[in-house]
Amino acid sequence: MKKIGFLGMGLMGSRMAKNLAVKGFTVHGWNRTPARVTELAGAGVIAAATPRALAAEVDAFCTCVSDPAALREVALGPDGLLAGAKKGQLFIDFSTVSGELTQQLETEFGARGVDFAEAPVTGSKNGAEKGTLVIMTGCTPQTFARCQPIFGAVGEKAIHCGPVGAATQVKLAGNVLIAAMLQGLSEGMLLTAKAGVDVRKLLEVIAASGFRSPYFDFKGKAILERDFTTHFSIDLMHKDLGLFLDSAAAQQVPTPTAASLRETYNLARAAGKGDLDIGAVITAFEVLAGTRIV
Amino acid sequence: MKKIGFLGMGLMGSRMAKNLAVKGFTVHGWNRTPARVTELAGAGVIAAATPRALAAEVDAFCTCVSDPAALREVALGPDGLLAGAKKGQLFIDFSTVSGELTQQLETEFGARGVDFAEAPVTGSKNGAEKGTLVIMTGCTPQTFARCQPIFGAVGEKAIHCGPVGAATQVKLAGNVLIAAMLQGLSEGMLLTAKAGVDVRKLLEVIAASGFRSPYFDFKGKAILERDFTTHFSIDLMHKDLGLFLDSAAAQQVPTPTAASLRETYNLARAAGKGDLDIGAVITAFEVLAGTRIV
Amino acid sequence: MKKIGFLGMGLMGSRMAKNLAVKGFTVHGWNRTPARVTELAGAGVIAAATPRALAAEVDAFCTCVSDPAALREVALGPDGLLAGAKKGQLFIDFSTVSGELTQQLETEFGARGVDFAEAPVTGSKNGAEKGTLVIMTGCTPQTFARCQPIFGAVGEKAIHCGPVGAATQVKLAGNVLIAAMLQGLSEGMLLTAKAGVDVRKLLEVIAASGFRSPYFDFKGKAILERDFTTHFSIDLMHKDLGLFLDSAAAQQVPTPTAASLRETYNLARAAGKGDLDIGAVITAFEVLAGTRIV
Amino acid sequence: MKKIGFLGMGLMGSRMAKNLAVKGFTVHGWNRTPARVTELAGAGVIAAATPRALAAEVDAFCTCVSDPAALREVALGPDGLLAGAKKGQLFIDFSTVSGELTQQLETEFGARGVDFAEAPVTGSKNGAEKGTLVIMTGCTPQTFARCQPIFGAVGEKAIHCGPVGAATQVKLAGNVLIAAMLQGLSEGMLLTAKAGVDVRKLLEVIAASGFRSPYFDFKGKAILERDFTTHFSIDLMHKDLGLFLDSAAAQQVPTPTAASLRETYNLARAAGKGDLDIGAVITAFEVLAGTRIV
Repeated sequence: MKKIGFLGMGLMGSRMAKNLAVKGFTVHGWNRTPARVTELAGAGVIAAATPRALAAEVDAFCTCVSDPAALREVALGPDGLLAGAKKGQLFIDFSTVSGELTQQLETEFGARGVDFAEAPVTGSKNGAEKGTLVIMTGCTPQTFARCQPIFGAVGEKAIHCGPVGAATQVKLAGNVLIAAMLQGLSEGMLLTAKAGVDVRKLLEVIAASGFRSPYFDFKGKAILERDFTTHFSIDLMHKDLGLFLDSAAAQQVPTPTAASLRETYNLARAAGKGDLDIGAVITAFEVLAGTRIV
Repeated sequence: MKKIGFLGMGLMGSRMAKNLAVKGFTVHGWNRTPARVTELAGAGVIAAATPRALAAEVDAFCTCVSDPAALREVALGPDGLLAGAKKGQLFIDFSTVSGELTQQLETEFGARGVDFAEAPVTGSKNGAEKGTLVIMTGCTPQTFARCQPIFGAVGEKAIHCGPVGAATQVKLAGNVLIAAMLQGLSEGMLLTAKAGVDVRKLLEVIAASGFRSPYFDFKGKAILERDFTTHFSIDLMHKDLGLFLDSAAAQQVPTPTAASLRETYNLARAAGKGDLDIGAVITAFEVLAGTRIV
Repeated sequence: MKKIGFLGMGLMGSRMAKNLAVKGFTVHGWNRTPARVTELAGAGVIAAATPRALAAEVDAFCTCVSDPAALREVALGPDGLLAGAKKGQLFIDFSTVSGELTQQLETEFGARGVDFAEAPVTGSKNGAEKGTLVIMTGCTPQTFARCQPIFGAVGEKAIHCGPVGAATQVKLAGNVLIAAMLQGLSEGMLLTAKAGVDVRKLLEVIAASGFRSPYFDFKGKAILERDFTTHFSIDLMHKDLGLFLDSAAAQQVPTPTAASLRETYNLARAAGKGDLDIGAVITAFEVLAGTRIV
Repeated sequence: MKKIGFLGMGLMGSRMAKNLAVKGFTVHGWNRTPARVTELAGAGVIAAATPRALAAEVDAFCTCVSDPAALREVALGPDGLLAGAKKGQLFIDFSTVSGELTQQLETEFGARGVDFAEAPVTGSKNGAEKGTLVIMTGCTPQTFARCQPIFGAVGEKAIHCGPVGAATQVKLAGNVLIAAMLQGLSEGMLLTAKAGVDVRKLLEVIAASGFRSPYFDFKGKAILERDFTTHFSIDLMHKDLGLFLDSAAAQQVPTPTAASLRETYNLARAAGKGDLDIGAVITAFEVLAGTRIV
């Protein structure tokens, strides 16, 4: 397994593809906007004309795209991967989509003799850059074993969550947790600030407490410095909260806090902040509260 | 400052009083239910008949009671501390109440020449036991300096947040964060479990992620083992979320997620779980979702 | 336009089909469970083997099915209406689905020369029975004119909301209103009852007030009598709230109360009440609140 | 019972006092801002220097003030009604406060031989003007009988809800209903408008539906005309939703939709709209949604 296809050269995908190339794989790349692939030519990434053409060239192909519609097009569209796929290949999807879609991909590609693994990741832009992502995987044990060389090139830990669909559940739950932590922090900072107290004191207390987290240090600092460079965009978190809520509705699990979180992202998007980092949700609430954190 | 009064011998207070005695202070204790003080006789705690009588005996007095009404009674009631207070004493309140009340105490005790500090703590039962609490303080710099020997005996870190009222704001924000983390974890675990995925995988991913926290390890384990020994009760968190929302309403800060969190505690109390640990909120949701985490 | 097809013989559809037959149309019927059509043989409804076969027989066809997936199957599936459709026919969809789907239907049937109108209704079972439904229509003015004979047979008022998609928006907004009214009533009744006050007094005040509505009289009486015969099921309202929230997310409109309403329906479904009338949501909350309205 | 005191000359109180004068009572008035009483001199209202002085002059006294703190001051303050009250008088409170406070008033005035009735009203400014208010009353049957002449002068219907406290519960539930109806309408109008559909169609459908209400006609028209003259202010509704939630928290009744409604009022107040009519909440959401209804 030497030749790897990588489709989707966004914030995460471009960095993962680069790591694969650096670690010695021959990487064929494709992106809806071709320029993003060309930029990686120096790193050795070879541009493919279509997903279909790419599939014909490689031993394994990986996708990392922004939403279910994009993945459906890349995988199942007229010029998609399935049209070019061959028996014995491996397909790893690093996107975060629904379990229904990943299960459909397993079935359709399986019918062609292609092994499929869903593999959403956490670690954001920095983790993709450094190859230290945590990978959640849903697939058979055999496929999990096949994925190891690729996982090793892009992440530092791969956790086998169960069959296809399981990793998506875990990933979506993790994102709800991130959103809950960040919104709790934001609401706390806003009230603290409007009440005239230095929000740095709140961050200091959190850092000393039993509920401390590197995430609070990271986002607290970013918010204080108003650095909203996108590690994980508001649009993507909004999509993931929607996927979580759809799954909760289907499974009949009441999740009131996740529902309230989706509304905060709705609001931040309506305020025109969709492509900023999730840390910027607080700026939409600053306007609502008529105050500034710092 | 050798003789210290301690009022309120609950989960937190009894452990803090014991630590003060162990560290060499002469401790006079009072509790609404006197038996709790008698139990500490072996640790050297001397029982007082009333808060008023206690105040007449000591250099400084500390309170750690459950809510604003209880604090008002102990501090300002007919047999309360103010009735026995003397110029030059120090009053430290370790309870979590409203900033309005702590500011009123500063004014009324200040008029008698008593220095006042609000000092809500975090670290729950274990921190109180081991003397490793984190103390948030709101008071003048002079009073903060006076408090050091007492803070050193019950906690490992004291953070001066600003004047009286500031520490309450920080403490309430911290509790919203705890509730958000725990509810995010609970909703995630519930959906993961109902979808047929092993929740241990979710905990494993969290522990490996950038949003890991000792709090998730602690509560995740407790939930798996269904150990809901009270470290911080649902009733108390419900009260604190209410105080946060009252403050947010007064300051005109929209806090939708905190509002949704209060409702989950409302629901857990209605389900008869008010005196259990906040970790048990998930058991109320297990009933709603018709599933069990493990 | 004499021969009409009707597909979907649920709570609403069976009554609408019967009214069409009574008013003199020749009605060809189809339902996923054929028995429901046979039951209407006495009323003159002629059973069709498939939607495709039905389409070949009639001048116009109407659908009234439970969700987008069912409509897609009936309209676009291998044995669906499109496969049998002929130039010059009229297609009226009385279901409540998404605007995306109705617009797709307009396009695909339009390409065959079939006029399409979306026509969600309000009035519930009773209105369908008596032919007094209010019909919201989205279509061209020409198609709206063509629909009049059919609309006149099943409803008392047809409101032309705009092009295809517009009526769905209006219908979904109306359902949010219904859910808000009912949940407001339910939360008010629950607290009134648990506080020991006779809930009939609340209903009496509402009926005398400026915010009175026949809906409160209707549902208030049903709740008091614990009559939850299905006029509009919890499952269907849950679906419609989801469609509204999907649309709100796509349009970037924050709708916090609609989001909280969807959670109450999530909860009622998890409690096993999905096929009961929406009035039964309160029974799920009675359990939560540990009280009974009456 | 000829001489009546009226305290609180706001939007509602001034109109009620005037009606009492018009119907033949001798009215003694008091207001925190005395000018409001002077304005009613032409209607025959005699200004009193203090609540205490007023109580000494009359057979019965009525209050209609904005919140619990104001009522406490007027009734129980140093120059309050209790200080001037005499055995055999009647005290009717038309404010909306908490059941705890009205029960306290019943006890304290009862100890002086004064009969007490809580009597919150609905009907807003117009009803107060025309004497067509609906009055909810909590008191003993005997006191209810004594109140009739006064009720008859200011309202068209008085409903005896139970003992003191009961009418407050009913009133608060009614206000939750109003807020739910208005917010449901607002979210529906916002999404309808942003989706490009004429919101007048939504109002037309509502008016033709089984969930129609004079309230939707009234507020729908006001919103279309952007007429936010205060009938019932955002600040007052925010206070009432808070009272409802406090009561729900105390009674352990989960009320998720009421909680979400309070947040919308929080947000509208933060946007500087607190003294506008509740119809103006939608203008705060127009900003959030980046759209205009009309």
